[in-house]
Amino acid sequence: MRYDVVFHVDEDAAHLDAALTNIRNYYAALPQERFTAVLLVNGPAIKLMGADGAHAQALAEAAGLGLTVRVCRNALRHFGLAPEWLCPVCEIVPAGVVELVARQAEGYAYIKP
Amino acid sequence: MRYDVVFHVDEDAAHLDAALTNIRNYYAALPQERFTAVLLVNGPAIKLMGADGAHAQALAEAAGLGLTVRVCRNALRHFGLAPEWLCPVCEIVPAGVVELVARQAEGYAYIKP
Amino acid sequence: MRYDVVFHVDEDAAHLDAALTNIRNYYAALPQERFTAVLLVNGPAIKLMGADGAHAQALAEAAGLGLTVRVCRNALRHFGLAPEWLCPVCEIVPAGVVELVARQAEGYAYIKP
Repeated sequence: MRYDVVFHVDEDAAHLDAALTNIRNYYAALPQERFTAVLLVNGPAIKLMGADGAHAQALAEAAGLGLTVRVCRNALRHFGLAPEWLCPVCEIVPAGVVELVARQAEGYAYIKP
Repeated sequence: MRYDVVFHVDEDAAHLDAALTNIRNYYAALPQERFTAVLLVNGPAIKLMGADGAHAQALAEAAGLGLTVRVCRNALRHFGLAPEWLCPVCEIVPAGVVELVARQAEGYAYIKP
Repeated sequence: MRYDVVFHVDEDAAHLDAALTNIRNYYAALPQERFTAVLLVNGPAIKLMGADGAHAQALAEAAGLGLTVRVCRNALRHFGLAPEWLCPVCEIVPAGVVELVARQAEGYAYIKP
């Protein structure tokens, strides 16, 4: 079984909270497996990814479990946010949609909480 | 062509209604095909899956078409719901997110209504 | 890398706007690649697909980039809309959910903005 997965969040705090709950449950359910889980954030949800934001602690904890956190540069630009503003766990990708397609093309599952 | 598919519902009644409409349309469109369709419910949508709930009849009818209905044990616990409270068509899986990934790894399509 | 992708929209104008932004970013990010991108619209979002609607211009521009726009006949019927009412870029498919599964079965990625 292949357990690689990309979680997609592009709306509001409720959806990011749901994704983080999904991600914690995922790691808890598969302690013996090796896999890559990616959280890809684009659209208005980018505004939730600040280093001083309400989700910074939960994002850091999820990264501690192994989660890769990627954010869309297009979204950063659209909302006028600087890379330095982001949580330190965030990696910037040029286009979030390309990341979503590329991971699926590699065999990752897609989940939209 | 492979027609196996997992429908994911994790929010409110409007989304469950949309999924059930999708599912009815799917069975109606493919009368000659053999496939497995799964409805996976996690998150707050678990609260819609009660045996006495407004969706119980529609869920039973969809199961009659062939639909497999699976619900997340993590969600049951989080909302303090007992397995006996559920519609009889519900199967409990340990973690809904693992079900979503496992089915996609087997080649099922994913639809989030 | 395979870049074929289907974008799924079934709710309201905000979600169609998000999808169209995603689609523009996708074409902008991959100028050297050959791929098929499909926008599949079903559910209440069908009401946004009129030739005189607020999204007609953006849909025509996206089609100009190469986007294939498909809409669900079940949704048209459910909302009492005639095929002639649609934007000229729309192709009608018998069942939107079958389109979503068939494209994924062919290897397309799925994105739900």
